[in-house]
Amino acid sequence: MKPPSDLPVRHRLLVAYRGTRFAGWQRQDGQPHVATVQGVLEIAVAQLVGSAVTAVAAGRTDAGVHARGQVVHVDLPRVWPDGALVHGSNHFLPDDIRVLAARPAEPGFDARRSADAKLYRYRLMRAAVVSPLDAPFAVRADLRLDVAAMVAATAELVGRHDFRAFALAGGSHEGGGPQATVRSVYEASWEDDPATGRLDLSIRGEGFLRGMVRGLVGTLLEIGMARRSGANLIALLAGAPRGQAGPTAPSHGLCLERVDYPHPHLWGPLS
Amino acid sequence: MKPPSDLPVRHRLLVAYRGTRFAGWQRQDGQPHVATVQGVLEIAVAQLVGSAVTAVAAGRTDAGVHARGQVVHVDLPRVWPDGALVHGSNHFLPDDIRVLAARPAEPGFDARRSADAKLYRYRLMRAAVVSPLDAPFAVRADLRLDVAAMVAATAELVGRHDFRAFALAGGSHEGGGPQATVRSVYEASWEDDPATGRLDLSIRGEGFLRGMVRGLVGTLLEIGMARRSGANLIALLAGAPRGQAGPTAPSHGLCLERVDYPHPHLWGPLS
Repeated sequence: MKPPSDLPVRHRLLVAYRGTRFAGWQRQDGQPHVATVQGVLEIAVAQLVGSAVTAVAAGRTDAGVHARGQVVHVDLPRVWPDGALVHGSNHFLPDDIRVLAARPAEPGFDARRSADAKLYRYRLMRAAVVSPLDAPFAVRADLRLDVAAMVAATAELVGRHDFRAFALAGGSHEGGGPQATVRSVYEASWEDDPATGRLDLSIRGEGFLRGMVRGLVGTLLEIGMARRSGANLIALLAGAPRGQAGPTAPSHGLCLERVDYPHPHLWGPLS
Repeated sequence: MKPPSDLPVRHRLLVAYRGTRFAGWQRQDGQPHVATVQGVLEIAVAQLVGSAVTAVAAGRTDAGVHARGQVVHVDLPRVWPDGALVHGSNHFLPDDIRVLAARPAEPGFDARRSADAKLYRYRLMRAAVVSPLDAPFAVRADLRLDVAAMVAATAELVGRHDFRAFALAGGSHEGGGPQATVRSVYEASWEDDPATGRLDLSIRGEGFLRGMVRGLVGTLLEIGMARRSGANLIALLAGAPRGQAGPTAPSHGLCLERVDYPHPHLWGPLS
């Protein structure tokens, strides 16, 4: 059924970007639109459709963080054919942001509120020098890391915990009371490729506090370097203050890989 | 044994680069040094060691072609400790070129003349839109490619053939007589990852004519799109003229992965 012409039509976009030069997803007061992924995407889609557009993303990735599978919704003045919206948007986008797929959203769909899980990947490279082909997307780590200790500690993250110790200031949890930093992690595991030195953390959860994955990686690296015990990590998961966890790992190792929605028969992956 | 101080000491470097902004490996008359990987590397090593340096590479990669495992030799005024040569060179290099490893060369070693095989990888992405994380290193290909036909045709490349039909003008084979375009290919195979759309050709041979891997890929793509038969490829391998093969595939999909040397106990891989 065609909606009446005066109601906007929500569309869903699958978006990928290299975060390198951006101040993160979210448009910020006092910053030029072109400094953020949201700002650049909104300008491109507005150029295509001929009216102002607000883009709402599932995950507000931080400065320098990449995405392979960000999900975004936009409300447009009319229905757009999938291919025209994809290729039309890409025509107006710089080459470090691409719309990979698009379609009219299912009734009730909201890219942020409907999401029930996000999968992030953090990439380390165990090498004396990181190849320039990997360097934009990976962080160098010590060749002598105790990966077994990191793997064992990572298993403890799964479940419902208070991740306050791993959150950066400025996140949406602030001022939200004692439950505001409690999150469920559904899966967390490392993939180790000794042939290339690549060491990837995949972590899937209902949602992540600002800087949480990077704070976890910084803490797990301290465990891998025997500067901290696995037991200490468990203690931190009861809502310890930020200062007790390890440093926030660099943003360019992090990538939002996928956003999951309930009712996959309705809201299943685009592409 | 320490060589007398007036004789230069040959060193071997393992070098990786993103070829995106370079006019290829080889320094060219009339072009600024900074336009080529060779020029930039020579400047950086000269800054480190305090005297002019000539860098000789195993493979003279073309404009836009990447390398993960280029091997280079340089003759320096004295012996350099491995780590000092690696990190000192990288200090003077831009971030799209890295020296990954270095050591004094074994007697008689010549990066180009000693090499007995090179491994190249060509990366296709079967996707409607290539993610910006892959786009600098991969070329978009049709989702409907007949990969089985490409795999079958690729097997025919292994052996000793006349690859004249796949060579670009301006290569070192020109004016070299009928045998100048004959080369041995030792291995050639595709790796297909349907989950990501990645489709990689790995091809290992004694040496490659200018543009040869890309000419082969352009021709194999025509086979994958049913515009050319596998039997036609076999016919081309008898020294057909360039015009009979497919187009030269774009350079940014190509990467020099590894250079092999005989006597691996002496000249085995750096890393």
